[in-house]
Amino acid sequence: MNMPWNGRSRAALALATGLALAVAPGCGDGKTRVAGKGGGGSASIAELMKARDLSEADVVAALKTYTPTGVKDEFLMFASGGHGGNALVIGVPSMRILKYIGVFTPEPWQGYGFDDETKALLASGSPEGKTLTWGDMHHPALSETDGVYDGQVLFVNDKANARVAVVDLQDFTTQQIVHSAILRSDHGGAFVTPNTEYVIEGGQFPAPLDGSVADIEKYDDFYRGAVMFWKFDRAKKRIDPAASFAIEMPPYFQDLADAGKLASDGWCFLNSFNTERSYGTGGAGLPPMESGASRNDMDYLHVINWRQAEQVAASDKAQVIQGVRVIPLGVAVEEGLLHFVPEPKSPHGVDVTPNGEEICIAGKLSTQATVFSFARIKEHIDQKKYAGKDPYGVPILPFKDVIRGQVEMGLGPLHTQFDDKGFAYTTLFIESKIARWSLKDLKVIEKIPVHYNVGHLSVAGGDTAKPDGRFLISMNKWAIDRFADVGPLLPQNFQLIDIAGDSMQLLYDMPLPLGEPHYAQMIKTELIKPWEAYTPVGMNQLTHQPDPHAPKSAQEARIERNGDVVDVYMTLVRSTITPDTIKVKEGDTLKFHVTNVEQTRDATHGFCIADYNVNLSMEPGKAANVTFVADRPGVFPFYCTEFCSALHMEMGGFLLVEPKNENAAGTAAADPPRNRADAKPSADGEGG
Amino acid sequence: MNMPWNGRSRAALALATGLALAVAPGCGDGKTRVAGKGGGGSASIAELMKARDLSEADVVAALKTYTPTGVKDEFLMFASGGHGGNALVIGVPSMRILKYIGVFTPEPWQGYGFDDETKALLASGSPEGKTLTWGDMHHPALSETDGVYDGQVLFVNDKANARVAVVDLQDFTTQQIVHSAILRSDHGGAFVTPNTEYVIEGGQFPAPLDGSVADIEKYDDFYRGAVMFWKFDRAKKRIDPAASFAIEMPPYFQDLADAGKLASDGWCFLNSFNTERSYGTGGAGLPPMESGASRNDMDYLHVINWRQAEQVAASDKAQVIQGVRVIPLGVAVEEGLLHFVPEPKSPHGVDVTPNGEEICIAGKLSTQATVFSFARIKEHIDQKKYAGKDPYGVPILPFKDVIRGQVEMGLGPLHTQFDDKGFAYTTLFIESKIARWSLKDLKVIEKIPVHYNVGHLSVAGGDTAKPDGRFLISMNKWAIDRFADVGPLLPQNFQLIDIAGDSMQLLYDMPLPLGEPHYAQMIKTELIKPWEAYTPVGMNQLTHQPDPHAPKSAQEARIERNGDVVDVYMTLVRSTITPDTIKVKEGDTLKFHVTNVEQTRDATHGFCIADYNVNLSMEPGKAANVTFVADRPGVFPFYCTEFCSALHMEMGGFLLVEPKNENAAGTAAADPPRNRADAKPSADGEGG
Repeated sequence: MNMPWNGRSRAALALATGLALAVAPGCGDGKTRVAGKGGGGSASIAELMKARDLSEADVVAALKTYTPTGVKDEFLMFASGGHGGNALVIGVPSMRILKYIGVFTPEPWQGYGFDDETKALLASGSPEGKTLTWGDMHHPALSETDGVYDGQVLFVNDKANARVAVVDLQDFTTQQIVHSAILRSDHGGAFVTPNTEYVIEGGQFPAPLDGSVADIEKYDDFYRGAVMFWKFDRAKKRIDPAASFAIEMPPYFQDLADAGKLASDGWCFLNSFNTERSYGTGGAGLPPMESGASRNDMDYLHVINWRQAEQVAASDKAQVIQGVRVIPLGVAVEEGLLHFVPEPKSPHGVDVTPNGEEICIAGKLSTQATVFSFARIKEHIDQKKYAGKDPYGVPILPFKDVIRGQVEMGLGPLHTQFDDKGFAYTTLFIESKIARWSLKDLKVIEKIPVHYNVGHLSVAGGDTAKPDGRFLISMNKWAIDRFADVGPLLPQNFQLIDIAGDSMQLLYDMPLPLGEPHYAQMIKTELIKPWEAYTPVGMNQLTHQPDPHAPKSAQEARIERNGDVVDVYMTLVRSTITPDTIKVKEGDTLKFHVTNVEQTRDATHGFCIADYNVNLSMEPGKAANVTFVADRPGVFPFYCTEFCSALHMEMGGFLLVEPKNENAAGTAAADPPRNRADAKPSADGEGG
Repeated sequence: MNMPWNGRSRAALALATGLALAVAPGCGDGKTRVAGKGGGGSASIAELMKARDLSEADVVAALKTYTPTGVKDEFLMFASGGHGGNALVIGVPSMRILKYIGVFTPEPWQGYGFDDETKALLASGSPEGKTLTWGDMHHPALSETDGVYDGQVLFVNDKANARVAVVDLQDFTTQQIVHSAILRSDHGGAFVTPNTEYVIEGGQFPAPLDGSVADIEKYDDFYRGAVMFWKFDRAKKRIDPAASFAIEMPPYFQDLADAGKLASDGWCFLNSFNTERSYGTGGAGLPPMESGASRNDMDYLHVINWRQAEQVAASDKAQVIQGVRVIPLGVAVEEGLLHFVPEPKSPHGVDVTPNGEEICIAGKLSTQATVFSFARIKEHIDQKKYAGKDPYGVPILPFKDVIRGQVEMGLGPLHTQFDDKGFAYTTLFIESKIARWSLKDLKVIEKIPVHYNVGHLSVAGGDTAKPDGRFLISMNKWAIDRFADVGPLLPQNFQLIDIAGDSMQLLYDMPLPLGEPHYAQMIKTELIKPWEAYTPVGMNQLTHQPDPHAPKSAQEARIERNGDVVDVYMTLVRSTITPDTIKVKEGDTLKFHVTNVEQTRDATHGFCIADYNVNLSMEPGKAANVTFVADRPGVFPFYCTEFCSALHMEMGGFLLVEPKNENAAGTAAADPPRNRADAKPSADGEGG
């Protein structure tokens, strides 16, 4: 298993990529000599290919992904981190991970969840005040202007706890976490409208919206789905819960959404599954959910007029449930803002084409992708041409009259994205392939194998009004034999595929070392304009304003006692912590107000205190606060945790916590301990 | 800043790598056509090089690092995660991160710190019972047999809280965390003796060993350093605290260690700095630590005879301090098991040569690397040829008589590793270079620039008795302009350097997305033999024995109530959770005993419960337990968090927590809520 350079069929790969190359072999001129595998010797390019068993296709792939020292990636991919709870930033085409951003899970390298600010942030985003320490992140959504990523903000959801977080791309930090009390899960988040007016969050598992408990047998009557529309305040870069609303839904599993754009602007399309309303065996011998939820041939695409819903939500027709303005299902039907369209069996992806005119849906238990025409949907809604109603009174449009057609895909089609040349790309989970098909002809042109069991895919700009195309990432759920073994828990596998040419070419396998990313969006690097430092010195990471407690220079560093509260105003600069000796009493409340007073790019310091679980990341200019009770007597070193300078190891100090009773055991005796220093200091050594 | 393919001097790079190549250009034959940058078209290799601005050196580098789909890396590198608190596994030469292993920081993707087992593990490794949720990991140490990595176990330290953890490389999970109550920090851990008899942990910041508080002005008399020797029980794969011991040291900053081997087997070499005993300003106008600790030209290499110390520790000459058997400093001197050798100013690295005959020390404030001869050290110890004593009575050997020589290095030399051809490699922090030098001649042969400010380096097997050579990783502290911008907190930069040839060649820049890795060790992949699943079904991850509570098949799944304790025996299998409906009362204690009953490789499931912070990672065959009080009434979905199958989304169920008082608000009313379902179920829709 560990013989690295053999055991593969190169011919098969070359065939799969559709390339017939004649590269360096035969071109060796004797001068082209490089260090080869064996070490010490040298080899031509051909010899290097031989030594590392590289095919001609491999050479081409290497040159398309390899990104030399100092060269920046052309695209940034923002990926969810699954139940790792944090978000990934990945450079494309090099497929190097540039950052994990702390969002739902405390992350000490960033000090995330360790300073007062981010502790409060995580608590505020937890239901009922008990801080959650993880999340199940599924769908990142970059903010958009005119249906195109604008690089300002990243939204992500937490399926497990029905939350949505806001990450500011100026400093790549989480700024807000919101939780809707009417939802208990939200697989269907986060998706934005074309100008980021709203962040859409569809629930998955229904439950009584008012938080009450109803017997599972009363599922049809008391359990409900819901879709949140979180209002985004672009000026404040915050979601405004008070201006947000929800629409009550039947107890189906509402799933992924996509907002209409251009032709379909103002509308939202939301998948559902388990319209069978299975809740599993119920402990009473009913079919398990996996079969109960898969009985019917069709589920319902939810078609929502969100501009109209916005009006209704603001009227007295809405009601408030657990603090959320909710449009009751009956009102939604009555007002004509909700319609259903049958969609093939247990779909995963609902994806609006770049021009906004069509909606592609892949039903995982179907073998087809279905292309719906928005114009026909709109026409049927306007003319109330219904085929019937669902059990909750929602009008259903006639399936065959509103589709443009269906594309025969293969086994397990899930998600679709688009390029800039009129192609669509659909993942095939069971077949472990990606299909490229023509939107014009609704015909599959080519399939490329992936390894293995692909879920989502991401094309650069592939869900926007202006796709970049060029690169596609296949987000594979199983890696199995792709990488060196690292125990029973394997990484997943992102595969980079070149889609610029006439034929798709697999370029690179990238293991995911942490988390199970579900979805990702890829944006041009040049559209992101991050800060290099917090300016001016003393900026608070969450308010992005001057922190009122921050010392701004070492001269302002000081210790102030007020009763049993000790305020420590502290500065960090290469290579000194000021103050460096802090003496307090057991039981004192310590409030550290720490500033990195530097403005030099990358001059980050850390600040930690032994045994007290205190750990801050102090980027240049940043101010942070941390409060704790000195509940353990002893001598506790503190130091800088970022290797900042040649004298970094000397950047430290001592916190002395004296026991409450000075005569108690725990205070040093008047004389040095027996058997310790047994020699008087002398200086007769050569060193020292 | 974001123009990706230009702005670099290729000529300079080619010069730096010392290669003069003539690759593909001129070899194009018209058939060699691949998709180029612009998309849609095709290009020859030469055109591709032009489109991506790849130099000839880049092409060679690309082909040396690029690792095609399905090919496994030849080496695995285990890197510390700094104050991220977790360990990294990186494939070399592809530089792909394969896994972050949860060690000191809870990590939900692995369920680490979320199940009862790993919660208890993290608590057991925390001082005084308060669970720490991070660590500052510095130095990984692979277990060794005969001075060579054996691939069985990985040890890592936590500098901030003086801890050492044991990671089993069968399943890549943390098995044990130990904490020595006499230490308050341990920059100098973890390092192993040649047959992993002991794991060495040197403290950094001195403090009273008995946990008492002494005024900082009494530093010389009451503060002490110490070095732990943790006994490793190879059969149990656990550290045995009862068989471990420490040696009391003067209040210098004891730092990194390296165990002797072969010629020097049985000995241990430990750096120190701040022999000036600066404790900073003391709040009283003394010099800050960065200058106070840098006054003298020499610090002390601590030379320890650990085999002798082992005997003394077992005798009544040792004393017990805070539960640790400690050899008092006076006894260590008296027994002749501790000697000092002057070493140039504030050293970082102490590195024993592969044959065990010499010790290389680089003093960061010196410009040289000093090579000490173990034979001469031993001779001087045996003959008691001392140059004096330090202030605490420790005999000092004469510097000039025990060194073989010094190598003029440049600015800021830190750490040294070795290859299989007689070369040593030393990092130059201030110069941002790595120097290759001859052990035979003690002369620098070549320097290669790195980007920027390199700390440690890692050569494959480079600190063992049998280095593999070939690859070197430069672990750079600053990245500055190397990668696309991701906010004020930048990744660090690992650079892969080919050292197989006559001249070093920079191959690859790898950003670190999480944590600040300090040190790494590189081992042949084939030496690691991980499990593919937990076998037999129902294995506990920490005991590696059958879990007594684990159900072993869906038939054994059940719910048992005993008073207000509810035991849920649960199984996971694609795509069903059994049981799928769980009804309890508010206030009940729930004990989940969960087994993934599959044995298929990579068939990992997850198990989470909404809002209750419950989240398990269930690799095939694994059993885990999680206990919590159902303190919130409501309906809480649970589901599988790993995309395991086509019906993964249907793999879920419901936990119903009924309020204590059934008539309280919080229980559903007898009738469905007003304005909810306003239509009687009907089935006249086309779908549904």
